[in-house]
Amino acid sequence: MGKLFVVGLGPGGVEQMTKRAYDALKSCDVIAGYNVYVNLIKEDFKEKEFLSNGMRKEVDRCKLALDEALKGKTVAMISSGDAGVYGMAGIMCQVAKDHPEIEIEVVPGITAACSGAAVLGAPLISDFCLISLSDLLTPWEKIEKRLDCASKGDFCICLYNPSSHKRHDYLQKACDIMLKNQPGTIPAGIVRNIGRDGQDFELTTLAELRDKQVDMFSTVIIGNTQTEVINGRMVTPRGYKLA
Amino acid sequence: MGKLFVVGLGPGGVEQMTKRAYDALKSCDVIAGYNVYVNLIKEDFKEKEFLSNGMRKEVDRCKLALDEALKGKTVAMISSGDAGVYGMAGIMCQVAKDHPEIEIEVVPGITAACSGAAVLGAPLISDFCLISLSDLLTPWEKIEKRLDCASKGDFCICLYNPSSHKRHDYLQKACDIMLKNQPGTIPAGIVRNIGRDGQDFELTTLAELRDKQVDMFSTVIIGNTQTEVINGRMVTPRGYKLA
Repeated sequence: MGKLFVVGLGPGGVEQMTKRAYDALKSCDVIAGYNVYVNLIKEDFKEKEFLSNGMRKEVDRCKLALDEALKGKTVAMISSGDAGVYGMAGIMCQVAKDHPEIEIEVVPGITAACSGAAVLGAPLISDFCLISLSDLLTPWEKIEKRLDCASKGDFCICLYNPSSHKRHDYLQKACDIMLKNQPGTIPAGIVRNIGRDGQDFELTTLAELRDKQVDMFSTVIIGNTQTEVINGRMVTPRGYKLA
Repeated sequence: MGKLFVVGLGPGGVEQMTKRAYDALKSCDVIAGYNVYVNLIKEDFKEKEFLSNGMRKEVDRCKLALDEALKGKTVAMISSGDAGVYGMAGIMCQVAKDHPEIEIEVVPGITAACSGAAVLGAPLISDFCLISLSDLLTPWEKIEKRLDCASKGDFCICLYNPSSHKRHDYLQKACDIMLKNQPGTIPAGIVRNIGRDGQDFELTTLAELRDKQVDMFSTVIIGNTQTEVINGRMVTPRGYKLA
């Protein structure tokens, strides 16, 4: 009987995976994924068969992986970050719906909220929300509503997909919504190329974030009303008494 | 010059850590942590010096770790899950505030939202919120406000610390707030002992969750209005066209 793993790689190379994820990839016959992510790990799994395709071909990719599992193979579908956070775990379960006999095991990885927060300091120590600004799969009105609710709740907020060529003003629009509910002085951080060559970060404020240019390889974190900058790092205190 | 790592262990034993976290622990002189977590990893790092103490002694623990770093040692403060999500990264930065010369490197781990979601299927594929129901460090009114805002925004919600001896009715109170904004039929899941012996999960609905007994070793995930149950797993679709 075939089996499907859906494996989160974490932010970058093999050293950012868990041992459990590494072992899952070592145990399988076929590794399937978006070709950019396949290339990140190919060197370490040379003995495997690979199935890769391009961006936006997620459904096809899952169908190809399912076909291999139905032939009796163990297949690992890879996702960058965590397979369960804007990753391939959901669509894999949907595509395999009519095949309950195929076991699906999701192996988590470090999502960009967590790897990005670690670079910035400790901005997501308390309650926070993850919101993707991509409206390819979610209507923009729903994204606006969530930005409004999250900032009304004084949540720290991590923005995924904060920009792209077609959506160059989405971060500005998002900031304008958050600024209705939160002071512009709240610390914010931009992390670029997390866990990869060229990783860097920038601290700013919610008001200034509005006019920043960010690219699609960036993750943005906005603090809450408690968030401070300590020694150049962004830290959200959790209420411990220090004295 | 001393250095401080704050390292997330992930949900359980050494195989759930990243290689980067493992290497950080191998590179240090001293490992500091809550004694339960120290015991989880002690066997694999026998050659290290350990500094451990009890629950609620987080500030003292950070001060002890800082003292060692000030002596020139490399110290790793460990957290279960992710050090940056309800973990030790924030308080460590706060305690070391007057010592900017001590480098603090946060090494992320798999937080319970991600490891719990993987057990349940793929409930957190789209925008979601993490909310802790512990009012030890956050006023209960703020927690209520966040539950209200998160459910108004149709976020998937992951609840940390859903219960304890003193807070046996907090999950019920939380469900009552969410039920004002969301239908009771929304799928919900409870995961116990994630990544450890005795791991199990239960699927339910928001309405039924209200009357469940959960313990402090549980993580609770509530879906959004799109969440489905597919082959016994909880899945939040992300809007891909399947046909």
